[in-house]
Formats: sequence, C-alpha cells, structure tokens
Amino acid sequence: MTKNLTRRDFIRAVGGITAMAVSGDLGPDVFAAQKRMFQFPEKDELILLTSRPPNLETPLHHFKKRVTPNKSLFVRWHIANIPTSIDLKEWRLKVGGHTEKELLLSMDELKKFERVTYTAVIQCAGNGRSFFEPKIPGAQWEHGSMGNVTWTGARLRDILNRAGMKSGAIDVSFNGLDTGTLPTVHDFIRSLPADKAMEEDVMVAYEMNGEPLLLLNGYPARLVVPGWYAPYWIKALNEISVWPKRFEGFWMDIAYRIPDNPCACVPPGSTPQKTIPIRRMNTRSLILEPEDGARLSLKKPVRMMGIAFSGGFKIKDVIVSVDGGKNWREAKLGRDEGRYSWIQWFHTWVPSKPGRYGLMARAMNGIGESQPFESLWNPAGYMWNKIEKIGITVE
Amino acid sequence: MTKNLTRRDFIRAVGGITAMAVSGDLGPDVFAAQKRMFQFPEKDELILLTSRPPNLETPLHHFKKRVTPNKSLFVRWHIANIPTSIDLKEWRLKVGGHTEKELLLSMDELKKFERVTYTAVIQCAGNGRSFFEPKIPGAQWEHGSMGNVTWTGARLRDILNRAGMKSGAIDVSFNGLDTGTLPTVHDFIRSLPADKAMEEDVMVAYEMNGEPLLLLNGYPARLVVPGWYAPYWIKALNEISVWPKRFEGFWMDIAYRIPDNPCACVPPGSTPQKTIPIRRMNTRSLILEPEDGARLSLKKPVRMMGIAFSGGFKIKDVIVSVDGGKNWREAKLGRDEGRYSWIQWFHTWVPSKPGRYGLMARAMNGIGESQPFESLWNPAGYMWNKIEKIGITVE
Repeated sequence: MTKNLTRRDFIRAVGGITAMAVSGDLGPDVFAAQKRMFQFPEKDELILLTSRPPNLETPLHHFKKRVTPNKSLFVRWHIANIPTSIDLKEWRLKVGGHTEKELLLSMDELKKFERVTYTAVIQCAGNGRSFFEPKIPGAQWEHGSMGNVTWTGARLRDILNRAGMKSGAIDVSFNGLDTGTLPTVHDFIRSLPADKAMEEDVMVAYEMNGEPLLLLNGYPARLVVPGWYAPYWIKALNEISVWPKRFEGFWMDIAYRIPDNPCACVPPGSTPQKTIPIRRMNTRSLILEPEDGARLSLKKPVRMMGIAFSGGFKIKDVIVSVDGGKNWREAKLGRDEGRYSWIQWFHTWVPSKPGRYGLMARAMNGIGESQPFESLWNPAGYMWNKIEKIGITVE
Repeated sequence: MTKNLTRRDFIRAVGGITAMAVSGDLGPDVFAAQKRMFQFPEKDELILLTSRPPNLETPLHHFKKRVTPNKSLFVRWHIANIPTSIDLKEWRLKVGGHTEKELLLSMDELKKFERVTYTAVIQCAGNGRSFFEPKIPGAQWEHGSMGNVTWTGARLRDILNRAGMKSGAIDVSFNGLDTGTLPTVHDFIRSLPADKAMEEDVMVAYEMNGEPLLLLNGYPARLVVPGWYAPYWIKALNEISVWPKRFEGFWMDIAYRIPDNPCACVPPGSTPQKTIPIRRMNTRSLILEPEDGARLSLKKPVRMMGIAFSGGFKIKDVIVSVDGGKNWREAKLGRDEGRYSWIQWFHTWVPSKPGRYGLMARAMNGIGESQPFESLWNPAGYMWNKIEKIGITVE
C-alpha cells in the first residue's frame, strides 16, 4: 500500500542532474536548443527540461502509439517539493467547504464510487511554447508535453454529491501534496467553476492505462478534466473544497491566464488589457512520419501519419498537403477512441519529381474549429496549434 | 431634409401585399418553400418573407458584387410600426444615462465627429435558418439576409466620450424609432457591454455606400457593430443610454440568445440549459457560381466563384472540392477590403468525365476558425455556417 520504493531513486536522480549542472553540462539558458535525455524512476528516457521540480518531455516518436504508455508520459510539476513517498494507509482525500458534510475518503472508499474509464489527451498549456517568436520565458516545451492516456477513476460529480454540495456553490478548488520550498511560494491550488465540476466527465482518476498512477504523474489520485489543459489536472490530489464565492489564488488569478479575446492572442511582444483563465484545448494536429528534414527516394511511396485532437469535439477531418498548401487531400482517420482521445491519421503518396516538399497537416473538429496558418502569440506562450508544416527532400 | 417621399408608396406596397394575402396567394405556412418577389420603395425586387414589418431577402446572384448596392440590401424589422417619414430637422440622437451630460445631436452635429468609413458584412442572426433540420419557426431565411456595405459615420466611442461616460458603466443600450402596434409588444432595444461599445470600430452610421441610409435600412442613422450579428445594428437610432448596471430587456434577456457552449448548439429538438446573447459572427463561405443543380458541358472550363467572411478576423484561405470533399484545392482570393468585409474567391477546373459532381467550399479565418461539416442546431436557428455543398451534372 506504500508507494515509496522509488524515493531513494528520486534522490539519486536529482543528485545526478545536480552533478551535471555543477559540471556545466546543463546551462542556465532557458532557450537552449540542445536538450538532454534523462531517465527518472518508473520512466523511459525522456527529455529533461528542469530537474527540481522534474519537468520531462516525451520524444515525438512515442506518439505513434494510440495510447501513451505510462513510462513514456511527460512529467510536469510546478513547485519543488513533490511527494516521493505516499502511504495509501495514511492518504485521504478530504472533501469539504460549502458542503453538507465533510468526507475523508480512503483509496478503498474512492474505489467504491462507480468506476468510469475513457481515453483522453493530457496536454500542458505551454506545449509548443518553444516555437513562438518572439521567444517566451518558461519551460521550452516542443510538442512533447502531452500524451493520450486511458484514465480510470470516480466521477467528481458523484463525490461532490456524496458530500452534499450546498446551493450557491461558485467554485470548487483542488490541492495536491506538492509544496513550495519557501513560505513565499504559492501552493499549487486551482479551481473549476462549480457547473464545470459537476459535468459528467470530470473524474478523480486513480489508474492510468489500467495501472495505479505513477508517482511522477500524480499518484495516488489526480483530477482529470478531459478537453481542458492539464493545469487543472491536479496531481497527488488530497483536498477538494467547495466555495460559496469565487475562489482566489495565485494560480488562478495570476498564472495560467490568456488574453480575453477570440484568438487568446495579442500582437507579439505586447500585453493584453484583460485576461481570463485558460480552459479548453484548441484543435491540433501533428505530423509524426516522415520526420522533418527526411531524405526520401523518388517514386517510392511515402507514408505520412500523425495524430490530431481537439478539446472534446472529436476530429472531423484531417487534410494533408505535400505542396505547401496548394492542394489538400483528405487523410484516412484511424480508430475512433472517443471525443477526448487523439486520433491517428494516414496518407500515402508517391513523389514523382526530385526536390524539396513542404508537408502540411490541418485538422478540423466537429464544430468547425481548425488551426491557424500563423501562430497566435500570447505572453505566456500557451495554446500553440499552428498548422503543421515540415520539409523533406526527395532524391 | 425630410425623407418621407416614400410614405404613400409604403402604404401602397403593404396594401398590395395584404390584397395578395386575402386572395390566398400568401399562405400562412411559415415553412412554405415558394416565395414571392416584391418591390418596396427604394428597393429592387427582393424576396418577400413578411410584409408588416417588412422582411425582405436578397436573391443570391446579387452577392457576386463585392459591395451590395443599397437597393439590393435585405430588410429586417422586428416590430410593426416602422418609421416611413423622418424629418431631419426634428430628428435628434439623444445620448445620456450614466454620463456627465446629455447630448441631443442633430445630423449636422453628428457629422462633425471624425468621419470613419469601412466595408462590413451585415448579417441577420437567422440567416440560413430555413436549412436547419428539424425545421425552426421564424423568418425562413435562406442565404439572403446579409450583404456587404461600405458604411460611413461617427465612432460610437467619440460620441460616448463627448457625453462623458462615467466610471462604473456596464452596458450601453440603443433604441430606434420603430414601435410595436400594441402596448404588450416589447420595444426593440438592445445593448452592448460598455467595453465593446468603446471599441474603435463601432460606429453610428449615416451613410451606406456613400448615400444617406435608406428608410428601410435605418435612415437617418443606425448602429454598426462590425463582426457582430445584425440585431445589434439598431436602425432609425434615436437614443443611446449608458447603464451603471446590467441592462435588462426582452430583446437581450429572452430573444437573440444562443446555447452557452463552444458550438452554440444542442442536440436537434432539445433545449439548452443555459444561454447567452448572440454576438460575433462565425466563419462562412458561399458558392455563387455555378448554381446548385446546373448542367454543364464536358471538357469546358467551369468557373467557381463565391464569397467568404468571418466575424472580424479576415479570411485566410478558402479551399474548394469538386469530388465531395476528398480532394481540396486552394481557391484564389479576390481583393482584400478589410477584416469586416467579405472577400471573393475563384477557382477554375475542367470536368474530364460526365456525371454528378459535389462542389464544396470551406473558408478559414485568421485565427483558425472554419466551418462545420454538419449543421450545429440551436432552438432559434441562428449562426448557420455549414460547409457549402452544391450538386452539378456534367453531360
């Protein structure tokens, strides 16, 4: 019942990174192009962005799988003291605030709620940040702070109903076991509007891909808000509070906010007049095959494949171009895994002339949301979803 | 200075329609497929939807012009007593409420504000309503309750600044000279959030395409809210009021509302849990050539053309398909008339085989908003923008 076998490994891992940093291998340049692979406990080799707290990016080729294996899933923490040992005998999920009663749920009790399962993309708000021009400070994610996972858990709604949410509830806040190293560091607490919290699909997950959550991904329980960006998906969740007024806090009122306009964007380098919390994911597609810069052979079929997803409205079509956007062809879509999952797409073509080709992919979801040709800049570098374009050479 | 020469013509026009109705030519069936052409004073022959108040739709072929001539522009009133005679000597625009002072602007005074001009699509919220399944009561517009007009007037912001909007302003309401025939009919008053009202491009227009407004289109002044649906574009405007609290009224709180979710849609036939006022136009395209059902000749070039527009974010590209959506080609865009105007698109192809062809057009704006493949149903039949598809035969 205790997940702590990795504690020593954690310390060793972080120690190893520190040693690298001291020896100069890890520079302080936040925009550094070269990244180092690193293997944390329970994980594959992933791309190391920061070590304390650990922020690890998944190499692109892992996304060719329909579902992202636990050991390949990216890791993203906000404050330094992350739980490295949790005894389920002691862990409780406290549910209270503006409720009829207070709950203190053990894992056994949590598992007695109706069990729900679906596959959903988890994606960092800053996924793709490194591609914005001008550059934006913060973790320099490429495309790898995302994954597609089959989550299992209890409906948040069922839990809130058990506690008896009182009328007049405005927000519901979520806190996990991570803490800052200094009193001045704001605890990572985030909130959902009460009506969103009561939506059918929001869950408190205790399994990812049929296994208990990994410590690095939020063991023993994390909030899953399918279709919304990952900052809402609080890890190592231990406290849910219902508020009869708007919840206020650094991580809602200052961080993770976007310009309050239809593109969530401002002219590059400028500051928005008004901001709102980031919420639903926009529509994205990725080209996974061939790789950018590949050299391919004349008259041999080229298999293009990739993935596409949206913030809960499925993917209606993906069109691809091999001539930089003049001609487009409908790609074949893979198996439909539900509205929160990504979907694979495939297209094969035969290059008939040598030269450079611009390969593009653009996805559209069920309500007509697609992707822009130009990036939509915002000061925090969120919501990157420009139409994918890679270059290949045919010889 | 008096626009009333058409009063007698108006009475005659409405009399003529009444006579038709009595003789049985105009049935009471709101979903009637067959429509009658009718010529009102100052107008071309337009499609008659209702006579009192006059609601007239523009036949599709008029949209081949970049700018819609005044006499071809659709007409849409909500309540029966519309102004048919206005003496500019008497007309004043009253501006007051939560302001430092009250203004009573004559047309001469209105014209002394800095003059602004741009071309903007005006579009009824219910444009395309007749295409929804299941059918929705209300004016059975096809595509013709829209147009593209060059508007000239004074910035609303400049007028509000002259009046001295006080701090704490929440909404700004707009009323025109039209009235109901019974005391139970709600006066057609609508409001904008104060920050929207202060945006640079909102204007009080007194000219359309370089001429004074037509009586049927809102003479002597109407609000122009470019990018937003026409219900905000109050005609025969004579009163602007600033409110230190939320403005309440039938036409904001009951009418012109859409489901409060990202698609503004609900399952066909159902009722949304929560609604919000309709606002910004979504992205649309229209195929104007060839016409649906056309029979064309083998191996002769087929010219496709149409228009596309969005709620203020320009059109980034229009792609067309002649095989029902498998292959798409980037259409050539016409002259850019600014972010609120529609833009023409063109594409020529040569049919190489006889048979039926499904011609499609889909537009995308600058922030990646496109059009859905399926219609997004809502109880009032607003915001129709399904991807255009027509059928032609090649012989």
